Amino acid sequence: MNKIINHWYDERFQDASSIGYRIIEHLHHSVSPFQTVDVYGTSDFGNMLALDGCIMLTEAHEFLYHEMLVHIPMLSHPNPQRILIIGGGDGGTAREVLLHNTVQQVDMVEIDEEVVKVSRQFLPGLSCKLDNPKVKLIIQDAVEFVKGLREVYDVVLVDSTDPIGPGEGLFSSAFYQDVLRSLNPGGIVVVQSESPFGIKGEVAAIQKKMRAIFPLVKLYWGPIPCYPHGTWSFTYCSKSGEEPIIRRPQAAATIELTAKYYNRQMHQAAFVLPNFMKQF
Amino acid sequence: MNKIINHWYDERFQDASSIGYRIIEHLHHSVSPFQTVDVYGTSDFGNMLALDGCIMLTEAHEFLYHEMLVHIPMLSHPNPQRILIIGGGDGGTAREVLLHNTVQQVDMVEIDEEVVKVSRQFLPGLSCKLDNPKVKLIIQDAVEFVKGLREVYDVVLVDSTDPIGPGEGLFSSAFYQDVLRSLNPGGIVVVQSESPFGIKGEVAAIQKKMRAIFPLVKLYWGPIPCYPHGTWSFTYCSKSGEEPIIRRPQAAATIELTAKYYNRQMHQAAFVLPNFMKQF
Repeated sequence: MNKIINHWYDERFQDASSIGYRIIEHLHHSVSPFQTVDVYGTSDFGNMLALDGCIMLTEAHEFLYHEMLVHIPMLSHPNPQRILIIGGGDGGTAREVLLHNTVQQVDMVEIDEEVVKVSRQFLPGLSCKLDNPKVKLIIQDAVEFVKGLREVYDVVLVDSTDPIGPGEGLFSSAFYQDVLRSLNPGGIVVVQSESPFGIKGEVAAIQKKMRAIFPLVKLYWGPIPCYPHGTWSFTYCSKSGEEPIIRRPQAAATIELTAKYYNRQMHQAAFVLPNFMKQF
Repeated sequence: MNKIINHWYDERFQDASSIGYRIIEHLHHSVSPFQTVDVYGTSDFGNMLALDGCIMLTEAHEFLYHEMLVHIPMLSHPNPQRILIIGGGDGGTAREVLLHNTVQQVDMVEIDEEVVKVSRQFLPGLSCKLDNPKVKLIIQDAVEFVKGLREVYDVVLVDSTDPIGPGEGLFSSAFYQDVLRSLNPGGIVVVQSESPFGIKGEVAAIQKKMRAIFPLVKLYWGPIPCYPHGTWSFTYCSKSGEEPIIRRPQAAATIELTAKYYNRQMHQAAFVLPNFMKQF
């Protein structure tokens, strides 16, 4: 159980470890049909969004997650035009996707409208691009949305919560099969794939499922201080088996100019795994 | 102030963020002339050492720190024979140093004998090599120890606590000057250099001091879940200005076989900095 004691919010993870921040204000609390939605003002890291008590982001750290989730697949694809974001109700993923001028359409399928609403109010730096005409916001369970789609998207970004609660179906083999079918030839999907330091083998379980479905599956990683254990993994899957190399060097150079995390060297370095992650 | 509430130990860092673990047992508490020394048994991460309330290591995560502190400089040096460890009373750094068969002498200068004593009792996986005949344990303030030394060591490893309390002097320019003098030509020093996500510019401050003293200073980094923000930096300094490349490929291949973090690709990738770290 998470604890808020004397203005500290400590998220307890798997009843084993915790990460927390000093809280100045509890800005918002609501209960949607899917989850509790809370926004806290932290002392030093901006506003913080928590869903069902799990910290989803702080304003100070969100660039780490969104840049790495988005730019690695977007710059590995030679011409990403149609993009599907699954989850991502805060808007940070859409914001980064729209930095790529090849993009013509961004379908964003978020199950919980309340997250979008709350982000518009309390996280303007993330939700700022949700009214862009290229973005089509679809309030629906993505598990249903992807069923029967065939060769629609160039890049699919699974920006989900953890594999408990409303995000659970987004970690199933059946869902990954539907995502594969929804991709154009040469399409790429990246999923947020939990912490490599998790004590329940979450990363390995996702790799195993993905490897049974996609011809190329590669793990990459980066630091995210507000997520359990402070380090997070992403799983890159290619429908055509193509390696995650930069295929639009000019666009990569442009993204690098304003990015706070991503650069072209990091595009490669993020895939270099410590020995213990090679076991996954 | 750190809190132990209902068997959770939450370390409060800079009054802004926290990291914690569920505690099964408080195995040891003592007050040395320098600091409080505590050992806790955690639910899932082995025994945990805290000095003055700051988490120094868990048995589950210590490989991340010790491998990256030690193997990067040791394998970048063509023939590291005489090694100085500053701090490192738990023994983990000495254990990794002794994996290199070029090593003839390891001087370990620890200010607080109590840390060594407690590690011998509660952290046998770390302290296991402290009785190796190559290791000379010197209980002394390293600031005093290095004064006046000239061209004695090939590699110096500053395995210190944070720049408050007994470790403070180990972050001064005067100390770094003495370390420079203590190095043989071609010598290398690596210092643990705090979290890149710290809110007080710790990493940048260390870089600035080092760059004024050494001809080559390079930052590298890795994940350490039990340290503030879950990511840590190391600063590599070369007396002769030589880049941190692998200079003993056969030894690197051997180390890689049993390491849990280090591998030859990571030797390079650890120096690839996200954009925000390039500002430091």
